[in-house]
Amino acid sequence: MEVEVKFAVENPDEIERIVEEMAEFVIDKEEYDLYFNHPCRDFAETDEALRVRRDVEGVTLTYKGRKVDPETKTREEIKVRLDDFDRMVAILGKLGFRVAGEVRKRRKIYRDGSIVICIDRLEGIGSFVELEIESDDVEGAKERLFEYAEKLGLSREKSIRTSYLEMVLNVADSDGKG
Amino acid sequence: MEVEVKFAVENPDEIERIVEEMAEFVIDKEEYDLYFNHPCRDFAETDEALRVRRDVEGVTLTYKGRKVDPETKTREEIKVRLDDFDRMVAILGKLGFRVAGEVRKRRKIYRDGSIVICIDRLEGIGSFVELEIESDDVEGAKERLFEYAEKLGLSREKSIRTSYLEMVLNVADSDGKG
Repeated sequence: MEVEVKFAVENPDEIERIVEEMAEFVIDKEEYDLYFNHPCRDFAETDEALRVRRDVEGVTLTYKGRKVDPETKTREEIKVRLDDFDRMVAILGKLGFRVAGEVRKRRKIYRDGSIVICIDRLEGIGSFVELEIESDDVEGAKERLFEYAEKLGLSREKSIRTSYLEMVLNVADSDGKG
Repeated sequence: MEVEVKFAVENPDEIERIVEEMAEFVIDKEEYDLYFNHPCRDFAETDEALRVRRDVEGVTLTYKGRKVDPETKTREEIKVRLDDFDRMVAILGKLGFRVAGEVRKRRKIYRDGSIVICIDRLEGIGSFVELEIESDDVEGAKERLFEYAEKLGLSREKSIRTSYLEMVLNVADSDGKG
């Protein structure tokens, strides 16, 4: 299970300075994510996701199950690495999966033991911190993540469960209306 | 487009001897193929296929479109390489794809210019030769393949379009009935 907490942040540079002191820098990269909807069920309703990601490290296909915890973004994630972005997108198209939206972000990843820290900047959307542990002890992992978040000045009450896809679609929606 | 002709053969050893003289040996391997059906359409009716293959070279996901030629197995094929068989199968399961059947075969591959020759042995099913060219000139490629087949003693009239999956399911079916 991917136990994950997420926070919107106004001050990513400041948090980055704190994280640089506490954790080991892993990578700084651009991520391009294409999300798909299912041919015969609505992922927005079932709270699932299917994504093809391209970044400097390669291409991945990821399935995300529904969120299983009311306070966090914890969910099952299954990921495979692929040798080609366009051909995977073509296969999904042939199978009737439709593009739901795209997300582009700049992501800095750090690691502190088993905790992965992502500082994400999305143009026109804002900046976010995601803390993540791979564990099947959801409650234990969650408490460790919220304790860690406190050290970064991020309070448990401000944890959000909104996905980047939802944010991007919301902005597109209000742009359309405005 | 994968322009492909296929023949059932009684004498694979003899054909192998001829092919060894004419073409370059590429690989001799076991292939394990798992075929899936779509969650909301019947691939047996739409004449499509989705397959995860594992062999000594790695894992691939392949989508095959419907056959577009009455005489051959010519169809669109889109293929990606993957880093893991079980995780891809798990993702397909989560998306509602159901296992349609499995095919195990011993395959020897040869190449003669742009023509790929496969000599396949399927336990309990029989032996087969597949000749293949990647080309969008279906008619031209088809003629070249049938000419090549003649050299192997395989006559155009005996070309078959039945997939290994169909053969395996037919055998399973008659076993069940017998």
